Order: sequence, then C-alpha cells, then structure tokens
Amino acid sequence: MELLSAHASFGGEQRFCRHPSREIGLPMRFSIYLPPAALGGTGAKVPLVVYLAGLTCTEETFPAKAGAQRFAAELGLAILCPDTSPRGAGVPGEADDWDFGVGAGFFLDATREPWQRHWRMESYLLEELLPLAGEAFPVDAGRVGLLGHSMGGHGALTLALRHPGRFRSVSALAPICAPSEVPWGVKAFSGYLGEDRAAWSRHDASALIAACAAPPFPGGILVDQGLADRFLAGQLRPERLEEACAKAGQPLRLRRHAGYDHSYYFVATFVADHLRHHAGSLA
Amino acid sequence: MELLSAHASFGGEQRFCRHPSREIGLPMRFSIYLPPAALGGTGAKVPLVVYLAGLTCTEETFPAKAGAQRFAAELGLAILCPDTSPRGAGVPGEADDWDFGVGAGFFLDATREPWQRHWRMESYLLEELLPLAGEAFPVDAGRVGLLGHSMGGHGALTLALRHPGRFRSVSALAPICAPSEVPWGVKAFSGYLGEDRAAWSRHDASALIAACAAPPFPGGILVDQGLADRFLAGQLRPERLEEACAKAGQPLRLRRHAGYDHSYYFVATFVADHLRHHAGSLA
Repeated sequence: MELLSAHASFGGEQRFCRHPSREIGLPMRFSIYLPPAALGGTGAKVPLVVYLAGLTCTEETFPAKAGAQRFAAELGLAILCPDTSPRGAGVPGEADDWDFGVGAGFFLDATREPWQRHWRMESYLLEELLPLAGEAFPVDAGRVGLLGHSMGGHGALTLALRHPGRFRSVSALAPICAPSEVPWGVKAFSGYLGEDRAAWSRHDASALIAACAAPPFPGGILVDQGLADRFLAGQLRPERLEEACAKAGQPLRLRRHAGYDHSYYFVATFVADHLRHHAGSLA
Repeated sequence: MELLSAHASFGGEQRFCRHPSREIGLPMRFSIYLPPAALGGTGAKVPLVVYLAGLTCTEETFPAKAGAQRFAAELGLAILCPDTSPRGAGVPGEADDWDFGVGAGFFLDATREPWQRHWRMESYLLEELLPLAGEAFPVDAGRVGLLGHSMGGHGALTLALRHPGRFRSVSALAPICAPSEVPWGVKAFSGYLGEDRAAWSRHDASALIAACAAPPFPGGILVDQGLADRFLAGQLRPERLEEACAKAGQPLRLRRHAGYDHSYYFVATFVADHLRHHAGSLA
C-alpha cells in the first residue's frame, strides 16, 4: 500500500492511498480520514464509517466537498472512501457512459462478460478493503457503519442488507432506492448481471428489505432526500424504500427537504446528522 | 447578470452568476452564498465577507471545498467569491503558466502591455462587483470584510490597506505577505506592473503596513499559517508581515499551526474562526 498524500485536517489527517487489488486485478485508490482520537499514539482503535460515493465520483469527492472531517474529528470516527469502480481495465467502451462502467461500479460483483473480471466492487470492499483498513489503520473492524450518496446510497443500503452482522449502522443521502425499476439501475443490472431479474432483486434495497422477516436494523435507517433533486422521481424513488420498510417493520427516518438538490451542497448540509447517527450505533 | 445555478445550502442558497464586466471587458463569473437571514423576505441586509482565492482557483473553489456555508448561515453572513482573473481574453501566452495570467490576477490593475486592457481585478472588485452585489443581493455594502487564501490572502490584505474605509475587517489564510521579495510576486509584479519597484510596494502588504503612521485595523488582523506548507519559506513569509505590524502598532493575531499544509483541508479547518472574526467587526 502506498500513501499518495496526507493533509492535516481538524486535528486529524486526511490520507489518500493506492494499493494493488487482488479482487479487482488492478491498482485501486481510496481515502481515509483519521480523527485525532486515532492519532494519539494510545493504540486506541476508532469506529469506522465507510462512505460510498455516487456516479462519476472518486475517493476524493467526499473528503474535498462534504466538510465531514470537522464532525468525524469531534465524534472520533474514521471515514473510509473507496473509489466508485475499477479504472484502467481497458474494457472496450468502459468510459463511454457516465452512468455505466468507469465511475459507476454500483458496488456489486458483475457476473457478465466483459465486466466480471474487474468489476467486483462488493468483494473488493468486503473481502479486501475493509480487512486491509483494519490492519493498516487504528480502526475497529468490528464497529463499521455504511453511508452513501445516490449510487453510493444504493451501495450502502444493499451491502448493509446483504451482509448481516458486518455493519452496525446504515444511512444514505438521496439513494437509488429501487434500482430494478429505474433507468440507472436497469442499465447497470442489465450490463453487470444480465437479464435474470431474481439476481437484480438481490441488489435492490427495497426488494431486500421487503423480503426481511425481521427488521435488519432495529436501531433505524436514516435517509435524507432533497425535494428539488432532479433525479428524485425518475431515479431515486424513496417512497419504494418507505413502503418496504413499513412492510418489514424496519424503522426508517426518511427526511424530505424542500429546496435541496442532488449536489454536495445538499450532502454537506446534512452529513453531520449522518455521522451522529452512526456514532450513536458505533460507540 | 445571469444566474447560472443555485443550490440550497444550510438553509440559505449558494448561487453562481455571470455578468458582462465593464472593467474587465469580458464576461466574469462569481459566486455568492446568501444565509437564511438574507432570504427571509424581511428586506434585511446582511454583512458581506469577500473571499479571494489563490492561484489556479475559480469562484467555485471556496464554496465547494471550504465548508464555510455552515458558519455563514449561523453568523448571518453572505460570502462573495470573485474569479481570480479574466478568462478568454486571448492574450498570447495567458494560460501558459499556472502562476501568471489566467487564474493569477493578483487582485491589482495591470499597467503594462499586453495585460492592462483586461487584467483590472482591483477596479473590477472595488468599482464594479461590490456595487453590483449591493444592488442585486440583500447585502449591506457598508459592512464588508475581506478574507483570502494565498494569492487571495495577498489580495485581501493589500485591498483592505489600499482602500481605507471600504472594508471593516480583514483576515487571511496562508497569504503571500511580501510579494516584492518572493518568486510568485516578482513574476506577477514584473509582468503586470513593470520594473518600477515603488509601484510594487503599493501592492505589497508588508510594505503598505510598514508605511502606516497609525494602525489601519485597530480591531486586529487574523492570519493563519500552516507550518507544513511547502510555500511557507519561499513564497509566503508571514514573518515579514509580523515585523511590519509590530512597526506600525497594528495588532496581528498570527497563528502558526504544526502539520498543516497549503490545501483546502487547512482552509476548511480554520475558516470558521475567520468568519467569526469578521462577524465580530461587521455586526
């Protein structure tokens, strides 16, 4: 693992790293914020929030734009941000679309040619990056929460639901709530998973929750959604998540905010509440 | 004036605008954050902090990366960010260097060919953008503070000193404190002003303060500087400002921070203190 850069930030450190990934078969970048509590030299391990970013983003988007370090420092949380897809795989057409391929990994393992060799973001995160973070940094791999925005909100919800016990808390900002039913999700699932709709349901937050016999996160899921978000009706559909949670008895705090759009100005406004939500479960 | 985009942010609004500039002779972009207090429909005018950005930056850098809106909202401050130079002038070689020409206007009026037609950032700010902001937005043109980073810190200090009475408060993050003596400043002053060293002194914060008979900002100047900033010794030289302030009896709170670099991770860490500094003088 290579440390590309490190920046002092709110008494802690914002780091950018690169490592050769076994699961992806290519070098991958990630960022990690370490709060002052992790750097005190006491050997103490801090809880970790994993942030999954949206379409076109990288491991740098959240640290540069969300203003979350202030609160991570106060709350004693580390924040790990993976990239949003493999890069440099050389798959023909991989960068032709902004909503598929490069920058659009959807946090799943592709099963279809030509994507299944490198597009393994789920295994990468669960089997490689999280264990690596637990070894390389003073973070407690037993206290991990998942947070994401847009495509990354889909990733946070689905990974938390698909891997019971791995994540203690989950929340999302403007997530794609029912990918099987919207253009972004249909395009991604068709391309990465093929036409088997049962496979799609296993990566669809609303379908996964609706199928739960008991609420998977009794402490509640926090979701924020702007009402001036131009993707709200066509791509995000939080009402589908709301219906699924009601059916499963899963507590959901879905906050709808008049005037807010899909940008990082929205993310920055509400991210402190998300970190507090996670800190409460990870303490 | 054209509104390019607007984003809800901490109960206020982050706007991006373009207007044809008389002083520059080209279209110019700027951004403005309006806090909730300015949008209440009460007709109340809020104080304004003008933020001047550094080399290569635009009107978007500060709103996207500094996380200042949270505190501007709490303190009831608007924040106006101009661009850092004319763009699209077509001067030969204008974009060849990252530290001269495009993105590097140094917040002065050039007097030398071929720059003096468009590179008029001082007159643009003082005679055009600030009056425009006072007319177009609910901001109080009589309560304005100046804040800047790096080249913009030079701009904030020099403009505040060159225009007594126009700005009630001034502060800077990692400013170029003695441009006449460092490579960035020598290159900019030679190109924009020619070889007349007396003209340089009139745009050099340390020289301007050293020449003051009485302290121009009795309420104090706040400057933050990271000690891991790779430009500290070669380009910034806060000790020169310190010496000049001591000579003039100008109160200076110069804070040196171990470990901090020149990036927006440094800016974001300390910007809240700067907004509080201005709010105290602009109330």
